[in-house]
Amino acid sequence: MVAIGEGNMEKHSAINLVGLISRKMNPDNLESPVNVIDSWITPNNLFFIRNHLPYPDISIENWSLIIDGEVNSSKSISYDELVQMSHIFKFVTIECSGNKRGLMEPPASGDQFMTGTIGNAKWKGVPLLNILDSVGIRENVKEIIFTGSDSGFRPDMSEKVNFVRSLPYDRNLLGECILALYMNDEPLPFEHGFPLRLIVPGWHGMAHVKWINRITASSTEFKGPFQAIDYVYLTNEDDFSNAVPVRENKINSIITSPGNGEIIKPGNITIKGIAWNGGSRTVSKVQVSTDKGTNWADARLTSPEHVPYTWTFWEFTWAVNQAGHYSILAKAEDSSGNKQPRHAAWNVKGYSNNSIHKIDVIIPIQRS
Amino acid sequence: MVAIGEGNMEKHSAINLVGLISRKMNPDNLESPVNVIDSWITPNNLFFIRNHLPYPDISIENWSLIIDGEVNSSKSISYDELVQMSHIFKFVTIECSGNKRGLMEPPASGDQFMTGTIGNAKWKGVPLLNILDSVGIRENVKEIIFTGSDSGFRPDMSEKVNFVRSLPYDRNLLGECILALYMNDEPLPFEHGFPLRLIVPGWHGMAHVKWINRITASSTEFKGPFQAIDYVYLTNEDDFSNAVPVRENKINSIITSPGNGEIIKPGNITIKGIAWNGGSRTVSKVQVSTDKGTNWADARLTSPEHVPYTWTFWEFTWAVNQAGHYSILAKAEDSSGNKQPRHAAWNVKGYSNNSIHKIDVIIPIQRS
Repeated sequence: MVAIGEGNMEKHSAINLVGLISRKMNPDNLESPVNVIDSWITPNNLFFIRNHLPYPDISIENWSLIIDGEVNSSKSISYDELVQMSHIFKFVTIECSGNKRGLMEPPASGDQFMTGTIGNAKWKGVPLLNILDSVGIRENVKEIIFTGSDSGFRPDMSEKVNFVRSLPYDRNLLGECILALYMNDEPLPFEHGFPLRLIVPGWHGMAHVKWINRITASSTEFKGPFQAIDYVYLTNEDDFSNAVPVRENKINSIITSPGNGEIIKPGNITIKGIAWNGGSRTVSKVQVSTDKGTNWADARLTSPEHVPYTWTFWEFTWAVNQAGHYSILAKAEDSSGNKQPRHAAWNVKGYSNNSIHKIDVIIPIQRS
Repeated sequence: MVAIGEGNMEKHSAINLVGLISRKMNPDNLESPVNVIDSWITPNNLFFIRNHLPYPDISIENWSLIIDGEVNSSKSISYDELVQMSHIFKFVTIECSGNKRGLMEPPASGDQFMTGTIGNAKWKGVPLLNILDSVGIRENVKEIIFTGSDSGFRPDMSEKVNFVRSLPYDRNLLGECILALYMNDEPLPFEHGFPLRLIVPGWHGMAHVKWINRITASSTEFKGPFQAIDYVYLTNEDDFSNAVPVRENKINSIITSPGNGEIIKPGNITIKGIAWNGGSRTVSKVQVSTDKGTNWADARLTSPEHVPYTWTFWEFTWAVNQAGHYSILAKAEDSSGNKQPRHAAWNVKGYSNNSIHKIDVIIPIQRS
């Protein structure tokens, strides 16, 4: 009757998905209710889920991670072996590159995500480079390919595909990456990639491959459909001649409270929001306008922690007594002067919309 | 941390709200994921919740229904007595009058509900007229007032208010109404008004008062804020001189599948949707256009039942092989010739948006 996860979820999951916003099912695409989460860490059960293909069927007893390709000695590592290795952790905010696509003007194709395909968590696991160095990456290697065990059909291809992505063999980048076994001090939930998920700090969500079962060193450029057809910025449809790959998040922010369209009692109103950035860059400033963008004032950055790769919470107190219609805007910038644009560069597939977020509210006439 | 229902829900609820779309919390305003529900009856746990005020605190041992006002003999009835009375049931689709407000053009104020504040259920309980007749309604009575036990503050008033609504003392209308104790053969869930909810078949959601604890016969017109400030069609803000009350649903429909923005494999695509009407009028026809509204063809009405006061499911098979961008529109009409307009009459508070629903989809070029 209601196909939430088509049975696989019940079979595997230990988490309760109350409160997620169902954007699409089969495969599950659920947004986080970011407007009601006050904690800097997104609880696992409220972390967004963006799947491209149906959930995989994984039996942990038979599971292993294969490392192969242009390496001196291929190997296979069991889950227990990964658990026994030395671990590190990082706090990393993951934002789907389709976040805010539903706010793109003019509209862009793809699932119409609003502001909730973003979350912040503590990811713990094995440093990726430790694994790569243990097999001996050959000198001719240009990319590392990560294969997720989720497979299924795309609307533009007749053959079944797995979700596969590559990263350049850049030791600075790979040195930041974690093969995560734990999310917020719990074993990685099935929906978030159990047993193993790649974490690429500062990059958009598509890079954080879930359900990884194979890592392949390659001397050539990987051109799978989730790398070369999707997740590229296109200015003209089906014209891949100038396709630029989607990689890092961009400087961005949203207003989480009040909600768009809300009718609010006059007085001192707390405007709240989230701001984030790409790479290891943090947010240095958030400004708020309550007069449609004419005047701007600094918001307070209220994050309990200010950590590279993670989002920043902010607040602004707005004293308003005059009944009327108001537009509230918020914009973030970083210490290098990167700022949100009023209107992000439009692209065919609607990636990385970092336009300044605007909401409209009403202060009603008081009647008694 | 995450305030879902501020504790009251956990205290009272027996239902699991997985899958609802959180539009606002405190008070809860959760849409039904109508795009993933294939059953004509909305399961209780996926029925939308639209609250104006915080959840009430109800102890069923001390609870009673008071009937008073312009009656020959006021009385108080316990829950057990209501359960022992003779019951009837009806299938009734309830649609919030703010449904599709988020699609209104230009935008209207209020919670930006999309297409999911609608549901269809079997409501069982005591015929309202049996209760009214048992106390002797006096001849001067013009309205019956229903008091919900939920109370709290509005953004435009300083005093605490309850959710209270009235109906005209029209025996034809009241003869259709049920004081519901059961929803889909289960005791009414707390979130849906336990112990007692008024069902007004064919009327918008605001009339279906939840958590009723008092019914009052009145010789004067009731002018509470949820009757005379909200739930009126206004053409100019704060101008109540020509305020028309919101009452029955209007002829309306939505496309539930595919989703807006979806990228779809070419072939025979099943377009699915829901259509409904106000009063006891049913839907006689649904038409679909796949060329932005130039040509229209009849959809199949697929409801397992066609019952007054309830929605109708429909389907349309679209054979498409040509890659491209398509707009799909659907419109419903009834046997009296009432049709959905291309653009519903705009009103300040965004009620009863029955504009023709339009979605955009893409058929991609096939790559292998």
